Amino acid sequence: MAFGPAAMGYDRAITIFSPDGSLYQVDYAFEAVKKGWTTLGVKTKSAVVIIGEKKKASQLLDVDSIEKVYLLDDHVGCSFAGLASDGRILIDYARNSSLQHRLVYDEPISIDYLTKLISDVKQMYTQHGGVRPFGVALIVGGVDRGVTKLFMTEPSGQFMPYQAVAIGQGGYSATEYLEKNYREDLNVEETVMLALNSLKATLKPGEKLSPSNVEVGYATRDTGLFRKMSLEERTSYLQKLG
Amino acid sequence: MAFGPAAMGYDRAITIFSPDGSLYQVDYAFEAVKKGWTTLGVKTKSAVVIIGEKKKASQLLDVDSIEKVYLLDDHVGCSFAGLASDGRILIDYARNSSLQHRLVYDEPISIDYLTKLISDVKQMYTQHGGVRPFGVALIVGGVDRGVTKLFMTEPSGQFMPYQAVAIGQGGYSATEYLEKNYREDLNVEETVMLALNSLKATLKPGEKLSPSNVEVGYATRDTGLFRKMSLEERTSYLQKLG
Amino acid sequence: MAFGPAAMGYDRAITIFSPDGSLYQVDYAFEAVKKGWTTLGVKTKSAVVIIGEKKKASQLLDVDSIEKVYLLDDHVGCSFAGLASDGRILIDYARNSSLQHRLVYDEPISIDYLTKLISDVKQMYTQHGGVRPFGVALIVGGVDRGVTKLFMTEPSGQFMPYQAVAIGQGGYSATEYLEKNYREDLNVEETVMLALNSLKATLKPGEKLSPSNVEVGYATRDTGLFRKMSLEERTSYLQKLG
Amino acid sequence: MAFGPAAMGYDRAITIFSPDGSLYQVDYAFEAVKKGWTTLGVKTKSAVVIIGEKKKASQLLDVDSIEKVYLLDDHVGCSFAGLASDGRILIDYARNSSLQHRLVYDEPISIDYLTKLISDVKQMYTQHGGVRPFGVALIVGGVDRGVTKLFMTEPSGQFMPYQAVAIGQGGYSATEYLEKNYREDLNVEETVMLALNSLKATLKPGEKLSPSNVEVGYATRDTGLFRKMSLEERTSYLQKLG
Amino acid sequence: MAFGPAAMGYDRAITIFSPDGSLYQVDYAFEAVKKGWTTLGVKTKSAVVIIGEKKKASQLLDVDSIEKVYLLDDHVGCSFAGLASDGRILIDYARNSSLQHRLVYDEPISIDYLTKLISDVKQMYTQHGGVRPFGVALIVGGVDRGVTKLFMTEPSGQFMPYQAVAIGQGGYSATEYLEKNYREDLNVEETVMLALNSLKATLKPGEKLSPSNVEVGYATRDTGLFRKMSLEERTSYLQKLG
Amino acid sequence: MAFGPAAMGYDRAITIFSPDGSLYQVDYAFEAVKKGWTTLGVKTKSAVVIIGEKKKASQLLDVDSIEKVYLLDDHVGCSFAGLASDGRILIDYARNSSLQHRLVYDEPISIDYLTKLISDVKQMYTQHGGVRPFGVALIVGGVDRGVTKLFMTEPSGQFMPYQAVAIGQGGYSATEYLEKNYREDLNVEETVMLALNSLKATLKPGEKLSPSNVEVGYATRDTGLFRKMSLEERTSYLQKLG
Amino acid sequence: MAFGPAAMGYDRAITIFSPDGSLYQVDYAFEAVKKGWTTLGVKTKSAVVIIGEKKKASQLLDVDSIEKVYLLDDHVGCSFAGLASDGRILIDYARNSSLQHRLVYDEPISIDYLTKLISDVKQMYTQHGGVRPFGVALIVGGVDRGVTKLFMTEPSGQFMPYQAVAIGQGGYSATEYLEKNYREDLNVEETVMLALNSLKATLKPGEKLSPSNVEVGYATRDTGLFRKMSLEERTSYLQKLG
Repeated sequence: MAFGPAAMGYDRAITIFSPDGSLYQVDYAFEAVKKGWTTLGVKTKSAVVIIGEKKKASQLLDVDSIEKVYLLDDHVGCSFAGLASDGRILIDYARNSSLQHRLVYDEPISIDYLTKLISDVKQMYTQHGGVRPFGVALIVGGVDRGVTKLFMTEPSGQFMPYQAVAIGQGGYSATEYLEKNYREDLNVEETVMLALNSLKATLKPGEKLSPSNVEVGYATRDTGLFRKMSLEERTSYLQKLG
Repeated sequence: MAFGPAAMGYDRAITIFSPDGSLYQVDYAFEAVKKGWTTLGVKTKSAVVIIGEKKKASQLLDVDSIEKVYLLDDHVGCSFAGLASDGRILIDYARNSSLQHRLVYDEPISIDYLTKLISDVKQMYTQHGGVRPFGVALIVGGVDRGVTKLFMTEPSGQFMPYQAVAIGQGGYSATEYLEKNYREDLNVEETVMLALNSLKATLKPGEKLSPSNVEVGYATRDTGLFRKMSLEERTSYLQKLG
Repeated sequence: MAFGPAAMGYDRAITIFSPDGSLYQVDYAFEAVKKGWTTLGVKTKSAVVIIGEKKKASQLLDVDSIEKVYLLDDHVGCSFAGLASDGRILIDYARNSSLQHRLVYDEPISIDYLTKLISDVKQMYTQHGGVRPFGVALIVGGVDRGVTKLFMTEPSGQFMPYQAVAIGQGGYSATEYLEKNYREDLNVEETVMLALNSLKATLKPGEKLSPSNVEVGYATRDTGLFRKMSLEERTSYLQKLG
Repeated sequence: MAFGPAAMGYDRAITIFSPDGSLYQVDYAFEAVKKGWTTLGVKTKSAVVIIGEKKKASQLLDVDSIEKVYLLDDHVGCSFAGLASDGRILIDYARNSSLQHRLVYDEPISIDYLTKLISDVKQMYTQHGGVRPFGVALIVGGVDRGVTKLFMTEPSGQFMPYQAVAIGQGGYSATEYLEKNYREDLNVEETVMLALNSLKATLKPGEKLSPSNVEVGYATRDTGLFRKMSLEERTSYLQKLG
Repeated sequence: MAFGPAAMGYDRAITIFSPDGSLYQVDYAFEAVKKGWTTLGVKTKSAVVIIGEKKKASQLLDVDSIEKVYLLDDHVGCSFAGLASDGRILIDYARNSSLQHRLVYDEPISIDYLTKLISDVKQMYTQHGGVRPFGVALIVGGVDRGVTKLFMTEPSGQFMPYQAVAIGQGGYSATEYLEKNYREDLNVEETVMLALNSLKATLKPGEKLSPSNVEVGYATRDTGLFRKMSLEERTSYLQKLG
Repeated sequence: MAFGPAAMGYDRAITIFSPDGSLYQVDYAFEAVKKGWTTLGVKTKSAVVIIGEKKKASQLLDVDSIEKVYLLDDHVGCSFAGLASDGRILIDYARNSSLQHRLVYDEPISIDYLTKLISDVKQMYTQHGGVRPFGVALIVGGVDRGVTKLFMTEPSGQFMPYQAVAIGQGGYSATEYLEKNYREDLNVEETVMLALNSLKATLKPGEKLSPSNVEVGYATRDTGLFRKMSLEERTSYLQKLG
Repeated sequence: MAFGPAAMGYDRAITIFSPDGSLYQVDYAFEAVKKGWTTLGVKTKSAVVIIGEKKKASQLLDVDSIEKVYLLDDHVGCSFAGLASDGRILIDYARNSSLQHRLVYDEPISIDYLTKLISDVKQMYTQHGGVRPFGVALIVGGVDRGVTKLFMTEPSGQFMPYQAVAIGQGGYSATEYLEKNYREDLNVEETVMLALNSLKATLKPGEKLSPSNVEVGYATRDTGLFRKMSLEERTSYLQKLG
């Protein structure tokens, strides 16, 4: 990414428009997302799958103890790419919002509404001074009253519904793979395999997916529940992947 | 858009006048509006129609799940061009204001007053420090006690009544079409067709309107209600359009 | 308007004096007034007339629905030139102040005092940081206990009593006309005609005043009430004007 | 007034000392005073007179309705030179302070103390950030328990007692005249004539004082009351002046 | 005083250290002190004397009504050099503190403690943003339980005990005189004469001290009271001075 | 570390993204960590060991009285590298949080959650204006319900689980040693020896570890308690180390 | 001290890291400490001694009335080098904290904890905007439950325990002397003599210590009390010193 003389200072202050109507700080926050670990989600009629990659940045990093896919409530989970500490703050906020919704209305929060709540916080951090935008994009997915849902929220606070979406370092390659292979009518297992294959498409020659560096969460239309795969399940799927 | 040396820093701070009496930040916010998806409204004696275009920016974007025309109350709806996250905040505010008006006065809010409320928030964000203006223009329309109403609110907080108005990427072409073809005495169906035709006028050669990438909301003088068209209705109208 | 090197940054910060004792931000706000639609007021012994011009900036603008002359209370009205959204905020404030005065003191607010209240808000926005001055000048007029009153408030918060005053794009031409033709002893109809003629003096060759693009408000010493002219009245006066 | 390179930025920020111990913003505020209408006060043993000049800046300005000398309480009045809207704020403050003093202590406020209160507000606006100094100098005068008093308060918040003082555009010429002709033992009429003559000394060739463009307020030791002259009184004095 | 390139901007912001550990704003505030009217204090075993000079800056200035030496409480007084309006604020604060001490503890405030209170306010204005330091130095003196006390507080908030101290325009000459002639065992009259003589040492050829332009306050160990000299006393002492 | 022209000001403001999505202030805070005293932690199945080095920067420094390894609760301790005063603030916060958890829930705080609490404070200081990030990295370790835990929290607020981690001046050499020699199945004594040996690997030729300049804290799976070694224990281990 | 181009603006803003992880404002505050009067502390098993030098900067300065060593509580005292007004604020804070501790817990505050409290305030002033760091270093010493204690707190908020420590103008020479001559097993008198001798080592040829320009405070293990030496004691010790 290159900025010529056109930027001329519009990118150094928070919450200010440049002459062409851009908010540079928000654009730069998206660069933090692009540098994050690859994260992707796939939504078919039968299931929603969210996969997060975990890179063993240091040999002594205890990768197995790192969480990359998060439950927000029984029916909804998420992952993110970008600044991990920013993501954590938003996930805490989402969990509290879900819990409070259950307490107040005695029913699960709708995934559209939960995504909107997260995104409203993000928007606020792009319009008021004294703060910087959140440097993180979240993929939120699950099952709402029998319908699968998948959203991606940007640092600007904009969120969009997707059939499949991939962000982070491998976002471009994974999206390319998904665009070629996505079909709405895959069954649960096929949906998981599509997600894993699109992550595999981001690997460099010689790299290999292992149960330690992939986390998988999924929700099926039948159960209506979002759950994370155990080590055994992940191992089994990766063997099928070859 | 080009700024020569005349800008000289007046455009880098919020809520400051330039020597010629302009507020550059507000002008730049309008640039964000011009880059938005095309949105337009038409008001005749018999109906008000608001159309929002949805571009399939990415192949896997679930365009059908994106909302572009919003109900604010039974009798009034809106759409916007510009920063989607900014628009969402103002629509939430408008819905809450409408609801509260019903609770307090036991009658629907007038569309003039609702538009003024939205615009007052926008004005506030152009005069006080520590915030940026809203990068969004809203088209608000509906039926007030048997009279059709249509307004457009600018990032400055100024709002104006229109017979027809188009904003966003295709704003210029659509306005040109509307100026040539607008008549006050169209019936409901003709009003819808005028709106769709003016959106069609913004397409590049080879592009085509489809039920998935157009949302239509309308209110008729007879019913006094604002409603969004179903997929079937949209399909039927687009077939007539050819 | 041209600023040489003398400005040297004193005009880029709010509420700061330049070496010659000027507040540039306030001067620049006045430039916004000069770019506004022409607005003028005339006060004679028998009546006060306030006229606002409405330009059909866009062909589809619903000019008839735009308000340019505002009632503040039974006996007093106003118009403005400059940023419309700023004007709206001050008019709301003036209406609330008038209403509250009636509630507390059970009598109409004096026009001097009402003008002072508006101007105090304006002054505050020129002395404290974090805000910009109001980019609007208001013409306030009416009848106080049988005496006609006419004031103009500047963005600085200064207000002055006038026999006649014109601001906005045509301010210079209208003032010239008024200076030549003003007499204190005109009757009500003559006062209205003087006001209309001075607005006519601002037109370019080929332009013409029409009932749609002029709003007229007036108060007579006899009634003590400020009212806006109906379309019929405006049509009738413009026919006399020729 | 010319600033060479020595200013180097110390004059662009509020409430900051320059290397030579000056507060440039306060000095610049005094420039606004120097550009104001001429205002002067004279104190003798028998009377205090305050005169304010009113320039008919525009031909249609209703000069007779402009107030330039203000009563603060029964025994004390004032005038000012500089930014009119700033002056108004301080006069309101002074009137409220006088009134409150009567309510709390059941006796008139001393003129020394009242002047100190005004000046304390001014000082505060020179030491704290986020505001600019008041661009106005007030001349405060009256009779305290049989003793005539006259003060001038500067934008810095400093105030000094004077036998006679003149500020604004004609301040220099009027002071020159006063220094030559002032005597402590003039009677009331002589004091008024001295004040009017010193204002006359500021006129350019061909200019003339008229009852419409001079306001006169005065307090005598005998009555202990500050009152403004009627049109008749002013006319009569100006005739004597020739 | 000259600042070479070494200052490089460290002197333009409040409460910031320069690389050599200086607070330039505080140093500059001291320059305002150096430009003030000469003020000095002398402490011997038998008395404390504080003298303030009053310059007749303008011929019509009512010098006799200007106060330059201030009583803070029965036993303690002060004078200052620097910005008069800043000094007034601190003197008000000192008087209130003394009064409150009497109300709460039913005994006079100690002069050490009173000086510390004043100095703590000054320190606060050098460490927190949004304000400038006080541009004034106070000389505080009096008698505490039979012991004479004399302090000088600097703009930094530092205060020191002195046997004799002189500040303002003539500070250097007066200090020189005092260093040569000070003795601890002078009686009351000799102490007053030493103070007057050291002020006389600051005069230019042809200048002369007069009872109108010198104010004298003093406290004696015997009475324990601080009082200001009457015109007669000052006249008598100045005659002795020759 | 070297910054070329690419930094161009993005590194001088708090909480602002650079065009490549970095937060330079957070990166610079990490430099403060790299300059700190070497600190390291090792986690095996049987024990967690945290070692902090203490350099005798000055000959008269009372090194024995300096604490470098801190108990946070019975089961958890920590050390840090970077700004000591920043570390102290976070350790106080961690101790209070642990205590409060016991009071409210009557059970020890989980080490994951405690680390998250510390890290949330850190994150907040990277996103809001008016503060700087914490210039310190903490190593937190202990035993949670029979499982050994070890985390390192960065200035950004990100925290990661580690098998072993070393920070500060000797962080690179110690990590290298740990990567070669770490095994998960060491017993308690072997774990301590590994930690000490990796610290030894950071010494320059001629330097030697002594009981005064090493602090050791450890928790064993068997006891579930975190305790600091006595001088005797440290002496005994260092003798074994040779 | 010299700063080359490397500083490049990082040293002009508060609480900002430079690329190498330094906080320049804190470093500059330390320069103010280095310019202060020499202050030193010595801790042996039997006693803690704190000495402050007082320079007669001006001939008329009443050096005997200046306090340089302060009691904080019965068992603990302190001195400082740097900005005297900053030091005074922290000493007030320390005294209040000690007093409050006695009131709440009915026992003397521990010297470690008291030093931590002072240092926490200092840290806060280095991490939050709108303030500058404290430009002062404190030496705190005394006896805690029979154990001698000595700390030095830096402007950063870091504090360290010392056997002996010297700061201010003569800090380097005194430290050199102390490093050569310090022994832990000196008796009370020897400890005092070591402290005085190390201060003597900072004198220029021809300078001499006198009872007026040295203040001595000390606490012995036997009494557990911190007390300041009388003039007689100081005179006697200085005679022994020769």
